[in-house]
Amino acid sequence: MADEPPVKKNKTNNLSDKKGEERKNWREWKEQKKEEKRQRKESKLIQQLEKQKQKKEEETEQQVQQEQRESKGRSYTLSVALPGSVMENAQSPELRTYLAGQIARACGVFCVDEVVIFDELREDVKTLPLYVRSVEGEFRGIGKKGQGCVQLARILQYLECPQYLRKSFFPKHRDLQFAGLLNPLDSPHHMRIDEEVEFREGVVLNHPSKPGKGSLVNCGMRKEVQIDKLLKAGLRVTVQLNNSQNKEGKLYKGVVVAPHIPRTEGGLYWGYSVRLASCLSAVFSECPYKDGYDLTIGTSERGKNADHVTLPPFKHMLVVFGGLQGLEVSVDADENLNITDPSVLFDLYLNTCPGQGSRTIRTEEAILISLSGLRQKIAAVFPDQSKG
Amino acid sequence: MADEPPVKKNKTNNLSDKKGEERKNWREWKEQKKEEKRQRKESKLIQQLEKQKQKKEEETEQQVQQEQRESKGRSYTLSVALPGSVMENAQSPELRTYLAGQIARACGVFCVDEVVIFDELREDVKTLPLYVRSVEGEFRGIGKKGQGCVQLARILQYLECPQYLRKSFFPKHRDLQFAGLLNPLDSPHHMRIDEEVEFREGVVLNHPSKPGKGSLVNCGMRKEVQIDKLLKAGLRVTVQLNNSQNKEGKLYKGVVVAPHIPRTEGGLYWGYSVRLASCLSAVFSECPYKDGYDLTIGTSERGKNADHVTLPPFKHMLVVFGGLQGLEVSVDADENLNITDPSVLFDLYLNTCPGQGSRTIRTEEAILISLSGLRQKIAAVFPDQSKG
Ligand SMILES: C[S@@+](CC[C@H](N)C(=O)[O-])C[C@H]1O[C@@H](n2cnc3c(N)ncnc32)[C@H](O)[C@@H]1O
Ligand SMILES: C[S@@+](CC[C@H](N)C(=O)[O-])C[C@H]1O[C@@H](n2cnc3c(N)ncnc32)[C@H](O)[C@@H]1O
Repeated sequence: MADEPPVKKNKTNNLSDKKGEERKNWREWKEQKKEEKRQRKESKLIQQLEKQKQKKEEETEQQVQQEQRESKGRSYTLSVALPGSVMENAQSPELRTYLAGQIARACGVFCVDEVVIFDELREDVKTLPLYVRSVEGEFRGIGKKGQGCVQLARILQYLECPQYLRKSFFPKHRDLQFAGLLNPLDSPHHMRIDEEVEFREGVVLNHPSKPGKGSLVNCGMRKEVQIDKLLKAGLRVTVQLNNSQNKEGKLYKGVVVAPHIPRTEGGLYWGYSVRLASCLSAVFSECPYKDGYDLTIGTSERGKNADHVTLPPFKHMLVVFGGLQGLEVSVDADENLNITDPSVLFDLYLNTCPGQGSRTIRTEEAILISLSGLRQKIAAVFPDQSKG
Repeated sequence: MADEPPVKKNKTNNLSDKKGEERKNWREWKEQKKEEKRQRKESKLIQQLEKQKQKKEEETEQQVQQEQRESKGRSYTLSVALPGSVMENAQSPELRTYLAGQIARACGVFCVDEVVIFDELREDVKTLPLYVRSVEGEFRGIGKKGQGCVQLARILQYLECPQYLRKSFFPKHRDLQFAGLLNPLDSPHHMRIDEEVEFREGVVLNHPSKPGKGSLVNCGMRKEVQIDKLLKAGLRVTVQLNNSQNKEGKLYKGVVVAPHIPRTEGGLYWGYSVRLASCLSAVFSECPYKDGYDLTIGTSERGKNADHVTLPPFKHMLVVFGGLQGLEVSVDADENLNITDPSVLFDLYLNTCPGQGSRTIRTEEAILISLSGLRQKIAAVFPDQSKG
């Protein structure tokens, strides 16, 4: 009613009176309109402001989330190095496989980011005709020795790879003949099919994708994931899934991120990479981190009692283990090293099991024992980043 | 000359002179004799005194040695308990054996004094006809389940036994079919044949011994050891060898001591004993130490972060591990326990691997990891008794 102007009556009695009334009505109506306009403007402004406020809030929330993620993150890395010769210390092909599995599990349990396998048996390899061409036209090493490094590396990689990706990356190979005996790593990046998580490992598929759209990736989910980029088929990628997904859609959506993002932003353990080194010194010289390892630890029963040691802050820690005969042998076999005492190679040379009740601790045991002791010391260095 | 009295000359000239001289000679001679007698007496006394002194010194030395030994000794004990069901978690008979070996090694490395294997599968056993008589007339359990405890115990005992005694104590048994795959414990009481040491494990032999003499014992040396007592043939004994041995003799000599003496007096790790318990509660109730375990620790990923825990002083510590499904299942299966939360059973309920990078840690891994963490804490309680 208020929206309609008062009716202009042409012919009326009591003219002056009526005219006065009409005028009054008109004024009221105009004022009312003005007021309404003002209110409309105001509410629009409020709406705008609210929208802005909301946007601001959303941004802040995102920022907070980002910060939370970053504070949830783990900044440092842990690398472990050991000689492939440990494989020669197993008594059957089954136990060789099992031993590699023990090492993989130990590294997984203690959130190791990189495993380096070095060759301490170069002498032995050199006395053999180095490589022969196999019937399939592939080069492969002969003799049992020297093969240890490659086999250990392969089994480590196999166990680190999420089960749903193994078909893509691990064709049948005799090194994996007894893989059925291996205990799974069961690390956080080994997702079950229906787990709703932020990050997933995937393989870029060979499917054609629509023009202007990114590649399709198998992330071990019920649908494929469309990423933001076009990548070569067969590549292993780390995918960050979008926060909200169209549940009705044929695909999930996500973006490709660097493999360290789940660790540095989410604080998640995201498996290890595997690297081969041709000798002990190459473990150091071929370090993948720009400024190298900034805290290196050698392990030996002849090392310093680890109980009396606290660790300094670090970015990239390396812990090195010896084989059957200790790091002395690895140092001896390395032509680049003109030393005999391994301890000079490291920032710390530690006995992580003082008072041991056995004359010798096996390398696969020493990894669990040493990393258990060092974990406590690392947690003391990074009190905000230690879980549990 | 001085021993011969001056010649009594019967006929002489210059009698008075001569007589005077003779008298003088006689007096001198007599005095000389007196003096010599005194000296002889004195030296005898000195000798006696010296003998006494030496004896005293020897006694003191023995006392000091004893005291040194006692201060070298380890006063506390460490027991570990786990369910035999862990054996069901292996994928082949070889790996079952190997798993038992891993547990033995872990206990050996960390100087565990007692391993208790408890049955958490009673339910399963009860639903089966319990025992059947085998063709050889022996009772043996049927089904795979339940056998785990006995087989684990047997392999643990086998590995603890010094190699030279195995023929006496471990007749061929199918539980030991794959014993060749086991890594040796290599603990200090596993002596090499020519090691010259104070203590040795031995088996009492069936040889007849001479009347009044003790039994003969095989201590894994080139000769047998004659002990101070007559003992039943076939008994396993701990022998303290005499400090000095007649190298030419046909036998070594020694005395039988309690098996704890090498630990309490010598500070030596002397292997573990193995005990079977019919359920989790029997681990506590059948404790072989008079006043029971005075520090009990349960382990679980749901336990308290062990990093924030210091241990109180203790005499007999017990650390309990769960099987595939954790201690909850062991508590559930125990009819004597009316609880559901295992933590109430223990003085401490600890997560010894906070931030673990695998969803689950296997029991054999958890033993190495937990004992490595606890070793540091024990060393802090007994700073004088920790080695290395
Ligand atoms: C079989 S052990 C080597 C034994 C060799 N006889 C020696 O004396 O070094 C294999 C590896 O386990 C590790 N290890 C063994 N005992 C250790 C201890 N008490 N502390 C730290 N690391 C140890 C070392 O990395 C060693 O090189
Ligand atoms: C396979 S785990 C049991 C896992 C089971 N799902 C649970 O939640 O307890 C076997 C045993 O290893 C030990 N364990 C595993 N993780 C541990 C941790 N983080 N701290 C201490 N003990 C652990 C416990 O004794 C556990 O009962």
